[in-house]
Amino acid sequence: MQFTAHELSLLLNGTVEGDPSVAVNKLAKIEEAGAGSLSFLANPKYEQHLYSTNASVVIVNNDQVLTAPVKATLLRVANAYSAITVLLEKYNTLKLNKNGIEQPCFIHSSATIGENAYVGAFAYIGPNVKIGNNCKIYPHCFIADDVTLADNVTLFPGVKVYFDCALGNNVTIHSGTIIGGDGFGFAPSADGSYTKISQIGNVVIEDDVEIGANTTVDRATMGSTIVRKGVKLDNLIQVAHNVEIGANTVIAAQTGISGSTKIGENCIIGGQVGIVGHISVAKGSQIQAQSGVSRTITEENKKWMGSPAFPLNDHMRSQIVVNRLPALERRIHELEKIIEELRKVQ
Amino acid sequence: MQFTAHELSLLLNGTVEGDPSVAVNKLAKIEEAGAGSLSFLANPKYEQHLYSTNASVVIVNNDQVLTAPVKATLLRVANAYSAITVLLEKYNTLKLNKNGIEQPCFIHSSATIGENAYVGAFAYIGPNVKIGNNCKIYPHCFIADDVTLADNVTLFPGVKVYFDCALGNNVTIHSGTIIGGDGFGFAPSADGSYTKISQIGNVVIEDDVEIGANTTVDRATMGSTIVRKGVKLDNLIQVAHNVEIGANTVIAAQTGISGSTKIGENCIIGGQVGIVGHISVAKGSQIQAQSGVSRTITEENKKWMGSPAFPLNDHMRSQIVVNRLPALERRIHELEKIIEELRKVQ
Amino acid sequence: MQFTAHELSLLLNGTVEGDPSVAVNKLAKIEEAGAGSLSFLANPKYEQHLYSTNASVVIVNNDQVLTAPVKATLLRVANAYSAITVLLEKYNTLKLNKNGIEQPCFIHSSATIGENAYVGAFAYIGPNVKIGNNCKIYPHCFIADDVTLADNVTLFPGVKVYFDCALGNNVTIHSGTIIGGDGFGFAPSADGSYTKISQIGNVVIEDDVEIGANTTVDRATMGSTIVRKGVKLDNLIQVAHNVEIGANTVIAAQTGISGSTKIGENCIIGGQVGIVGHISVAKGSQIQAQSGVSRTITEENKKWMGSPAFPLNDHMRSQIVVNRLPALERRIHELEKIIEELRKVQ
Repeated sequence: MQFTAHELSLLLNGTVEGDPSVAVNKLAKIEEAGAGSLSFLANPKYEQHLYSTNASVVIVNNDQVLTAPVKATLLRVANAYSAITVLLEKYNTLKLNKNGIEQPCFIHSSATIGENAYVGAFAYIGPNVKIGNNCKIYPHCFIADDVTLADNVTLFPGVKVYFDCALGNNVTIHSGTIIGGDGFGFAPSADGSYTKISQIGNVVIEDDVEIGANTTVDRATMGSTIVRKGVKLDNLIQVAHNVEIGANTVIAAQTGISGSTKIGENCIIGGQVGIVGHISVAKGSQIQAQSGVSRTITEENKKWMGSPAFPLNDHMRSQIVVNRLPALERRIHELEKIIEELRKVQ
Repeated sequence: MQFTAHELSLLLNGTVEGDPSVAVNKLAKIEEAGAGSLSFLANPKYEQHLYSTNASVVIVNNDQVLTAPVKATLLRVANAYSAITVLLEKYNTLKLNKNGIEQPCFIHSSATIGENAYVGAFAYIGPNVKIGNNCKIYPHCFIADDVTLADNVTLFPGVKVYFDCALGNNVTIHSGTIIGGDGFGFAPSADGSYTKISQIGNVVIEDDVEIGANTTVDRATMGSTIVRKGVKLDNLIQVAHNVEIGANTVIAAQTGISGSTKIGENCIIGGQVGIVGHISVAKGSQIQAQSGVSRTITEENKKWMGSPAFPLNDHMRSQIVVNRLPALERRIHELEKIIEELRKVQ
Repeated sequence: MQFTAHELSLLLNGTVEGDPSVAVNKLAKIEEAGAGSLSFLANPKYEQHLYSTNASVVIVNNDQVLTAPVKATLLRVANAYSAITVLLEKYNTLKLNKNGIEQPCFIHSSATIGENAYVGAFAYIGPNVKIGNNCKIYPHCFIADDVTLADNVTLFPGVKVYFDCALGNNVTIHSGTIIGGDGFGFAPSADGSYTKISQIGNVVIEDDVEIGANTTVDRATMGSTIVRKGVKLDNLIQVAHNVEIGANTVIAAQTGISGSTKIGENCIIGGQVGIVGHISVAKGSQIQAQSGVSRTITEENKKWMGSPAFPLNDHMRSQIVVNRLPALERRIHELEKIIEELRKVQ
């Protein structure tokens, strides 16, 4: 995508100093930028880069004083830093501004789709699916029977949503994520084999949830696996059947939550954490990466670490001693020898 | 999906008390149920809910005595609890009762497909693929050259099966799982770069195996990676090249098994376990979540925990002391001081 | 796929002893081979298998002397061991020797594709995509706007590449892997909710990189997430936004690298390792499976283990004592009793 300095000035309500027709197609740090790059100078400390940069366009504050000649075209704005934030969002919006129905796609005759939709080629929308307004269903998505999507939902390429699941407003799900696969439920038989337990519940994802790539959220055995409003899940996370994740909880990549566990709201959970089934984690809990939570946490707003997880400070204290263990063992051995001597003396 | 009380009575061989035309479209606990819900009362202890429930239909035992008026339509059956199990399975079967060939799909002219198949839109079935009877190939599945599927195989949307792999009867694989990707084999060169080792084996999955979502089972370098009869794998599991998993072994999410390791039958392996390559794990082993198995386990039917894994009791005993380490260190320091005193005295 | 002994002799520049028309369709160990199998005998130690094998064809060295009758057809070559390596590669090449454009696929009118391409059915190639020569885009791949692929790139079924990403020569990516999903960036608000930070950078994958199945490599917030030349990544790995992985580094399955961390070149990283964000790992570092790296590693070419990771030997020494902790605690208790006695005596 390419913008001229003039186009940028309209977008950002700025004024051009230099060639308004010069075009940029990427963003770069001012000291690393080459021809065709857009840069910005927000911090006066780095002013010297303005005179040496190879960027084609540099966004500067309105009050930026020049003390040497500048090769780049300047774009003066009220606040260079917030201008760049605005620009990032606009760029992103442009990149993701798909609409229309691409062919071939599969839309069952009983499905309904709201206004201003994007349905990519090879997307599959099954019987009785209800899709709200302004939804984007990228290529290779699969939406099974009776699924509902509210408004402004984005499913990136290859998301699969099994039957009966429900997604709220402004939900975004990244590629390869599976919503509503069967919970892992099997009953052992006397001969050592297992019998499948039908998983007929669903997954409910509330408003403003974002889920990363290749994550799995299993359907409930009965009832619902629930991801509450505002939750953010990273990539490759496992959410088992009948789990509930509280509002505005954030979970980093590769963490796993076992069946029927309830996570409170406003928790922050690191990467590669494991949480056993059938427990609850109090709201505001912060769990360090690679921890293993094996019991219910009832105290709110505490930090936890280790496998099994203990309060952060207790864990740290123990860990420090673990590293001194060989020395500690030698000290014990030393004591034993001394005491042996003392006893002989007596 | 919607059923009337009358339809349910035919399905469950029961008798209706109340309005036979009332319809239900979801299942709920009797104390939480709203209009349009089906509930059940199996345990007499909860009888009072029968008189207050908002469920539209409640399944009860034939011998249920009423001691107050009931608003819901009742459906009397021989055993309310097993009726609900039957119903769950029937519901599931209905939901998954797809058949026919949807278009567009890609079926190579040399592929053969048995009776009563479902092939979803955008499914890809390559050259010389052989598919048995009653198989369901959901949208976006990919089945490469020379793959064979026996009877009653279900591949949920987006499963990919690389060339030459073989799946047995009644195998079910959930969305996003990859069967037969290349084993991770590279030979180091003198300059620090790596040369690919061709991975020309395959994956063999025996009868009655179920695999969750986004799991990966790599093909063997030569020979086969084998998943034996009745194995159940959860989501996001890694099974490396030339691994063999014994019959009726169950493995929870996010566990990884490295190359050429053999897992015995009837093992139960928790989530996020790591098992190194080129070892074997005796049958009946139970390995706790987040453990790391670094050596062959020869004793059968034992429990293991920790990273590295030790017998469960040994590990637990050590872990308890780990948490007392700061206190233990203080005790040693105390002893050292006392002994210093004692020596002075002498 | 099937070859006759005669066809193999042409392929391997060998001579047939026995029936040149006998056909084989699989490779097996000489002692396990059945009819229709190809085997080889490279090590004279196993000569006896030559006389008992059920293989249809056996590859032997030119100078192999026979001391008993052989049932199988022999194929004599200069070096039986390297012949088999050549054969594996040829077999693999044949299996993966796809070309042409299958229908239906989606190729945007503004995309360009080099010579000798394979584009599978249901592949999606978006606006302004540039694809070099000899690329293979399997079914269900998605390549978004402005992505570039150099020459000899293979994307196995279901790979998704988000907009603006760039892949070098000879890059191979296995099924289900997601390149360029959004980095996990959210700014906390006063009310506990989070605001999305636009992720407008990209992913750059240099030449000769191979990535396994269902791995995720997130795009940079700004700038690039970079996977350097010759890197090999296994399955189910998480590479966060703005990470850089140095040339010829190898990473095993289920490892996760957090945002903005730089991994040096020639590192070997085991499975299920976690590496925190905003640190660097010196070149040549070797990190054992399940380790947790929580600080920058500056010393090159060292081995690390544990969570948190310590130099391998230190970690091993501490771990050994951990297992002796219950005994150690008893020894301390014993000392305390003795000292109590000693004090009484005084």
